[in-house]
Amino acid sequence: MRHTVILGGGSGTRLWPASRKALPKHLLPIAPGGGTLLGAAVLRGAAVTQALTIVTAASQRAATALVAPGAQILSEPVGRNTAAALGLAAATIEREDPEAVLLVLPADQHVANETLLAEVLARGLAAVERDDVIGTVGIPPTHPETGYGYLEIAPERASGGVTPVVRFVEKPDRATAEGYVASGRFLWNAGIFIVTARRLLAELEARLPVTARAVREIAAGRVAAEDVYPTLQGISIDHAVMEHAERVVTIPATVGWDDVGSWSAIPALRGVDDAGNTIAGTVVAVESRGNILISDDDTLIATCGISDLVVVKSGNAILVIRKDQAQDVRKVVDALSARGLARYL
Amino acid sequence: MRHTVILGGGSGTRLWPASRKALPKHLLPIAPGGGTLLGAAVLRGAAVTQALTIVTAASQRAATALVAPGAQILSEPVGRNTAAALGLAAATIEREDPEAVLLVLPADQHVANETLLAEVLARGLAAVERDDVIGTVGIPPTHPETGYGYLEIAPERASGGVTPVVRFVEKPDRATAEGYVASGRFLWNAGIFIVTARRLLAELEARLPVTARAVREIAAGRVAAEDVYPTLQGISIDHAVMEHAERVVTIPATVGWDDVGSWSAIPALRGVDDAGNTIAGTVVAVESRGNILISDDDTLIATCGISDLVVVKSGNAILVIRKDQAQDVRKVVDALSARGLARYL
Repeated sequence: MRHTVILGGGSGTRLWPASRKALPKHLLPIAPGGGTLLGAAVLRGAAVTQALTIVTAASQRAATALVAPGAQILSEPVGRNTAAALGLAAATIEREDPEAVLLVLPADQHVANETLLAEVLARGLAAVERDDVIGTVGIPPTHPETGYGYLEIAPERASGGVTPVVRFVEKPDRATAEGYVASGRFLWNAGIFIVTARRLLAELEARLPVTARAVREIAAGRVAAEDVYPTLQGISIDHAVMEHAERVVTIPATVGWDDVGSWSAIPALRGVDDAGNTIAGTVVAVESRGNILISDDDTLIATCGISDLVVVKSGNAILVIRKDQAQDVRKVVDALSARGLARYL
Repeated sequence: MRHTVILGGGSGTRLWPASRKALPKHLLPIAPGGGTLLGAAVLRGAAVTQALTIVTAASQRAATALVAPGAQILSEPVGRNTAAALGLAAATIEREDPEAVLLVLPADQHVANETLLAEVLARGLAAVERDDVIGTVGIPPTHPETGYGYLEIAPERASGGVTPVVRFVEKPDRATAEGYVASGRFLWNAGIFIVTARRLLAELEARLPVTARAVREIAAGRVAAEDVYPTLQGISIDHAVMEHAERVVTIPATVGWDDVGSWSAIPALRGVDDAGNTIAGTVVAVESRGNILISDDDTLIATCGISDLVVVKSGNAILVIRKDQAQDVRKVVDALSARGLARYL
């Protein structure tokens, strides 16, 4: 059976102050139409699979269940990155369904063309079921983004859009990214994987045996996650498995994908007005252009003469940051931690 | 006897959102040391006079009494600009003290060198008592400010620093202001006047007879201010009297004067840190320079990568405006009025 596995345990500081430890990015109502990104991921999976498992932090379990009431929810007592999370899901699902095929979706992405993505995912699922490959989704880059990983593909593309991946590349520097885009042989790694539970567990066994054994023990109910999880290595599934695996393929998908990695991604989700501003809540913008202005209650944000800024009031905090520097919100988060102001995180 | 008259009825939108209709600029704790500008004006007057009268809006009477418990407070039922306010004060004081000399001080100014100003005011009071002139204080301009009125003085300066005023000039445009500064014959009009009550009332009688009669009737208790005030002409004492009066003098005074006309004046009052930021309240500024960042409670303002902005959280509103455009806060105030958002004013 086809299973969607959504990895939704991120702490989500990149949309601070809207996202908090207790309310990560994928649980914010920022998707078009006012839904959550997690809700969008649930629908994305439901279009092409029959079952849904969500791996999340114990602290987010209740909120996750509200968004996805029909899902099997697996709680991690602490975060140990995606290798452990996906291993736990695969081990749990495989006990009930040894033939399970897993569609692994990040919880916090925006896709403009869900219909086209569903076609791509269906083709990927079929390829995995036929050839036992590991499937990925590659986004043809629109600019030399340095915040994403890339997939290098072979010069000759295979039929049906399913293309062998030559290698995974980590976030490149600017010059390298420009070379990638110019070459036409590099795609953004959307972080979506399709793999059988059996193969995933076998790969984990080969690369990360302690983790593989631990998640099987937890899935079997022989040990408590609280006891063993903290000792596991925190490593991504990319680093642990994908970068070393054989027979990895990708399907290029021009679907309007965005990982909503910073506030600057919000205009694509929410639209802009005639002055280029993206506005939510009580806002009065005078002679202001190209800003993102969001207030989460009836606190007024009034601006005059500003351009290309992000101003977000959320709860007990206000963020003001240059839009083109919005990924640096982590510097603010780090500064708050360093100054003992964790009550604002 | 020498009387200070403080004109403190302004609505004070220029420091919105800190200043509100109910809490104007001169009642905010923004003076050095945490006091109010009104409190500073009270001390300024007390240094050189024996009595104090404050004219204010009825709605600000209670707050005014808290700052100046020993003052005679005259409430205006509605604002009718400075000619009526000063006339009311003069008529009231003159009934008790026909020889009264009035030192008229705005309520909302900052003076860095109060000691030197006290010397200037003492010299002005003496000149008025000796020659029955109208005394003003002229600030040698430090830049071609277009937000102030100017005093043109005669090329040859009189002795003792007391200099005849040739004419009053309204707020000039930029090019005119530059010519003024270059000429050396123009001073900023500090809005401070010294005049006998008798002469002020005579000038009012000549120029604004309806107002002169009304304030005398109110002072005598023969009519209620509520009944007559709304009918009075709203005109400044400059326009109504000073610009037409004979024997007006000024004393140039390099005293670090500022009328705190916008947020951009605040760094001079409150100082700046090593990054050029003026900070009050809970603020974390990362890679941010030359900003004014003020939060009035434990709502955090966090910034990253911004320069030369004003960010003020006060009560139910947040203002974000370019520092060099800070006088345009009135555009925000106008926009709020126009959109039915007066609850934020």
